[in-house]
Amino acid sequence: MSGGDIAGQWWLGVDIGGTRTKLGVVDPEGDVRRTQVIETTHEPFGTIWERLLGYADEVLATEGAVGLRGIGIAAPGIVESGFGVRNLPGKVHGIEDFPLRARLEERFGVPVRCVNDGAAATLAEWRFGAARGHQDVVGLTLGTGVGAGVVIGGRLLVSRHLGAGISFGHATIETGGRTCLCGNIGCAETLVSANAVVGRMRDAVARKVPSSITARYEQDPGAITFQALIDGMETGDRVATEIMAAFQRDLGATIVTAIHAYDPELVVLAGGPMAAAGYFVPQVQAYVDSYAFRFPKDRIVPIIRAQRSDHAGVLGAVALVMQATDEAVTVGGAA
Amino acid sequence: MSGGDIAGQWWLGVDIGGTRTKLGVVDPEGDVRRTQVIETTHEPFGTIWERLLGYADEVLATEGAVGLRGIGIAAPGIVESGFGVRNLPGKVHGIEDFPLRARLEERFGVPVRCVNDGAAATLAEWRFGAARGHQDVVGLTLGTGVGAGVVIGGRLLVSRHLGAGISFGHATIETGGRTCLCGNIGCAETLVSANAVVGRMRDAVARKVPSSITARYEQDPGAITFQALIDGMETGDRVATEIMAAFQRDLGATIVTAIHAYDPELVVLAGGPMAAAGYFVPQVQAYVDSYAFRFPKDRIVPIIRAQRSDHAGVLGAVALVMQATDEAVTVGGAA
Amino acid sequence: MSGGDIAGQWWLGVDIGGTRTKLGVVDPEGDVRRTQVIETTHEPFGTIWERLLGYADEVLATEGAVGLRGIGIAAPGIVESGFGVRNLPGKVHGIEDFPLRARLEERFGVPVRCVNDGAAATLAEWRFGAARGHQDVVGLTLGTGVGAGVVIGGRLLVSRHLGAGISFGHATIETGGRTCLCGNIGCAETLVSANAVVGRMRDAVARKVPSSITARYEQDPGAITFQALIDGMETGDRVATEIMAAFQRDLGATIVTAIHAYDPELVVLAGGPMAAAGYFVPQVQAYVDSYAFRFPKDRIVPIIRAQRSDHAGVLGAVALVMQATDEAVTVGGAA
Amino acid sequence: MSGGDIAGQWWLGVDIGGTRTKLGVVDPEGDVRRTQVIETTHEPFGTIWERLLGYADEVLATEGAVGLRGIGIAAPGIVESGFGVRNLPGKVHGIEDFPLRARLEERFGVPVRCVNDGAAATLAEWRFGAARGHQDVVGLTLGTGVGAGVVIGGRLLVSRHLGAGISFGHATIETGGRTCLCGNIGCAETLVSANAVVGRMRDAVARKVPSSITARYEQDPGAITFQALIDGMETGDRVATEIMAAFQRDLGATIVTAIHAYDPELVVLAGGPMAAAGYFVPQVQAYVDSYAFRFPKDRIVPIIRAQRSDHAGVLGAVALVMQATDEAVTVGGAA
Repeated sequence: MSGGDIAGQWWLGVDIGGTRTKLGVVDPEGDVRRTQVIETTHEPFGTIWERLLGYADEVLATEGAVGLRGIGIAAPGIVESGFGVRNLPGKVHGIEDFPLRARLEERFGVPVRCVNDGAAATLAEWRFGAARGHQDVVGLTLGTGVGAGVVIGGRLLVSRHLGAGISFGHATIETGGRTCLCGNIGCAETLVSANAVVGRMRDAVARKVPSSITARYEQDPGAITFQALIDGMETGDRVATEIMAAFQRDLGATIVTAIHAYDPELVVLAGGPMAAAGYFVPQVQAYVDSYAFRFPKDRIVPIIRAQRSDHAGVLGAVALVMQATDEAVTVGGAA
Repeated sequence: MSGGDIAGQWWLGVDIGGTRTKLGVVDPEGDVRRTQVIETTHEPFGTIWERLLGYADEVLATEGAVGLRGIGIAAPGIVESGFGVRNLPGKVHGIEDFPLRARLEERFGVPVRCVNDGAAATLAEWRFGAARGHQDVVGLTLGTGVGAGVVIGGRLLVSRHLGAGISFGHATIETGGRTCLCGNIGCAETLVSANAVVGRMRDAVARKVPSSITARYEQDPGAITFQALIDGMETGDRVATEIMAAFQRDLGATIVTAIHAYDPELVVLAGGPMAAAGYFVPQVQAYVDSYAFRFPKDRIVPIIRAQRSDHAGVLGAVALVMQATDEAVTVGGAA
Repeated sequence: MSGGDIAGQWWLGVDIGGTRTKLGVVDPEGDVRRTQVIETTHEPFGTIWERLLGYADEVLATEGAVGLRGIGIAAPGIVESGFGVRNLPGKVHGIEDFPLRARLEERFGVPVRCVNDGAAATLAEWRFGAARGHQDVVGLTLGTGVGAGVVIGGRLLVSRHLGAGISFGHATIETGGRTCLCGNIGCAETLVSANAVVGRMRDAVARKVPSSITARYEQDPGAITFQALIDGMETGDRVATEIMAAFQRDLGATIVTAIHAYDPELVVLAGGPMAAAGYFVPQVQAYVDSYAFRFPKDRIVPIIRAQRSDHAGVLGAVALVMQATDEAVTVGGAA
Repeated sequence: MSGGDIAGQWWLGVDIGGTRTKLGVVDPEGDVRRTQVIETTHEPFGTIWERLLGYADEVLATEGAVGLRGIGIAAPGIVESGFGVRNLPGKVHGIEDFPLRARLEERFGVPVRCVNDGAAATLAEWRFGAARGHQDVVGLTLGTGVGAGVVIGGRLLVSRHLGAGISFGHATIETGGRTCLCGNIGCAETLVSANAVVGRMRDAVARKVPSSITARYEQDPGAITFQALIDGMETGDRVATEIMAAFQRDLGATIVTAIHAYDPELVVLAGGPMAAAGYFVPQVQAYVDSYAFRFPKDRIVPIIRAQRSDHAGVLGAVALVMQATDEAVTVGGAA
């Protein structure tokens, strides 16, 4: 890392989502000193962009422009590090092909990098969280779908067409399985996303299988959540118990595939279900210990809980631009 | 690439197998000028090593030591580029932890690199064969098992524990499927290796399903091969037709998973079944076109036949050491 | 059939359901001359019984007691022909072990028989509907679950423990499949009941698979019905098309199992989905023609639509008591 | 049963197989007093018939024609009780449509009945063996395929087209499973016949999964039998253990389906694997106890071992003709 007064340095992280965008001021150690959330539902990106600049100016005024070292942008969809969002169907109108990096570098005069939000979650853990000190990391976020990011050799895995690593949630785990929103069948996402678990519960409810979940659903259809699964298990509910067993096995199989594809030193899990990690991570670890081939033989691939989920997008994007800066400085220093 | 008299340059490639080891003299364009095969079944590696050195000396005498630019070694199992074979259970006694690279560099005074044979097959295609000019390539070899290698950003994918890419044949494609020799269940290898196809035929024979395959088997158990499947299809045999349909679908699902994991520009297939590529590659391509998510949307990920399978190990190992030399030269030139 | 003035003869059929009970006056040809429905939700059976007797008296007064030849009772659950309902968990409090036949015979002085409602549906078709003239018939009713009844050799299949035929909806069609409300896994009912189809749609909605069904659901969760599936198919919706394809295949497999278990001359389907029979029966017939083993080889096992679904319980129960009377008369005549 | 000197009565049972035909003299209690086996491989039925008559004459001479009460014939394929074999593709040339009953009744002047061999096995147990005293029985014979027979209400289940009960081995247990020799997919027979188990072992051997079975196979391909599975389990072999676990589960699912289809009081298993019944019947019973729906709730459906397998065909065929005689006598007595 470069010399100079590290104390005054800061980075701006921006996490663009479908319904809200978050800005965060990040210090060199990954502490998020302040955040700002912009509700953006249904707004075209042009409007969001103006509001974003406004907030950035405000932050700059407060934090001092002189300390700003870089800006990182996280967003869903296909994101090109040196450009911006390339593909994000239907979520934020007008963001595709907007030259985010060029516009921001022009305006703020610091390095800018963009990154897919699933990849950002992994980078956040790798630089500031549960995977610090490791060079090979797979991160999975269990949410609406399954976000993914892969770090190998201390660098984010990136392919020319930008899909490597981030599309891993669509690995086929179950041939002949159910159709995924991506159009493929039997994706990990159809089995282990938080929504997939809810889907299984709704199916059981529709078929009137006796269950505390059904009773709960009849009172409030919105009550069928991952938490309802945990509550059901605690009362010994059979449907809940069986859906959880399937989730454990399928998440195990997904992680085994990740290990056989990327060979990480550890796997970091994030997302809503991790609030109840104690109910399934030990079983998933046991599955992985049984079924994952690895070398050396006695090596365990730990499955651990993400530590920086609160600011995953902000921190991951900042981690990426920090790494770019570090390397530029190193090369510069060698000159 | 460095200057100098390129015409006189050559590389030595060595492909160590379970039953035979092959040496090849490779010119800068990937032409294999001469090869030598050593039958090595059940020999301890110490013996193989001595014979290897003997042949290498011979080759050196003929080709001229002055032109030798590097040595590449391909081997099955877990292989460390800068060391040698780290794990190869039961195949070649004594090869594990033998410092191949150090010994060879010491003796021949040129750069040496080692690589897994599945990875070598991909490197051979990437530098000298069907994938030339691409930077993101997945190669799969359908044989006893499913060999694999991944090039991303023009470099072989390598993890600290050496399993990335080469273990992809053990991705779980079928949750709850059959046990693989690796100990996992539902691996791609249990479905799309040449042996897996033979296994399905043997199962049908054992169950006495009426089939030309059964008739053939009764005459000669050794006749149940991938070719027997093709012959069966040609005569309209139902068992053959259905096993082929399952193979096409499962290979499609395996490649979709490879695309979702690594996002290659193309996929190169090698191995015995590719002699009958016309019987299944078009159907696999159609499956992939239907089910693989990719960006940009109209991009096809071509599934193509390997061109350098005859010398895959030799050429892939040489490709790796060539790349190391190229880069050293480049850095040297910058000095 | 006995002689006498057939014109004045009539039978009383009673169809006891979870939420309503229906009485019907049936003439010798199976015409239902008049019906009466009693809403019975949550009422104990004691109350229903009193109301039932009241209505029966009314009917008797109108129709003329002299013409009454028998009473048939259909009910869900385990039903014993010569007794009444033996097991009906949670649906109608107090009906289990109520001696329906004895009490009714005592009161009305005519033969009484009781029968499971799924079996009644088959008997109704066999005597008065689509299966008239056949001696081996399987009937399936696709509803909340899958009702079933089997006629072999012109008689309802009945076992000592009363489960034969009527439990066929719980045949395991999919090993390792989903849990059924009966406690078994992979039952036909988990795949081809109307509710199972709805469950699949709800699962897809929960996983946010793009679909016209999802849009519809967001407006009205109650709109996810079998009809919604048909509507979706008509607009080319992919989710609807795929769920329909799975339904066709699974219903085909269920019927093949029924044929391999009971070898009927034809299969009669009833239930809500049959309103859209044209969307799936031809495909199911094709599946059955391909996969069902039968003798003679060129025999087709037609899958046909029930004709008497409006009064299935009433008519089937009457068919059973009619058969008992016929036989008694025949024996009497022989004396 | 009729009066008269029961001590001198006897029945002739004939069990026609693909490679041998067996005759047996049966006394009223089901003791087989003497047997004769005719090797018949590849002989046309005309020849077999002549030899059969020759042996029958011999037996008659020895036992005394006056005591002969009836003749029962068991054969594979589609068999019509009052006629003979209707369909037996490829096994015994010329047997189809030979009027066995008529010819034998003409010649010997006693009642004759014919029956499928799987059905005979069930009848043998019902009248003389493990199922004596029960009226609802399912019998399954695990061999090359899965033979089946069903007794309900104390009578063999028979349909107009002759397939009821005997085709149960082709119930679809695994949708999307493997093709059976009958042309259907996922039949019980593809999973739980002795041959299906061998097929799974051969598949594992072909895929080179490390196993004591593979070692054994390499020495002798014919050594891959159900017994090899048991031997493998005893030594802790993983492949053997997993194939056995799958067999237990699939046999459990098959029996659950039989229970849900026919509701027997007990299930009788026969066939080669039953020599090792202790290795799987307890687990199958546990599966059935967990998953079979039955009434009354606390009723166990015992899975028991056949006692009369040595003479299953002979005894079952005799049981059928005995029942016919009993009934004729009863009716006659009532006259």
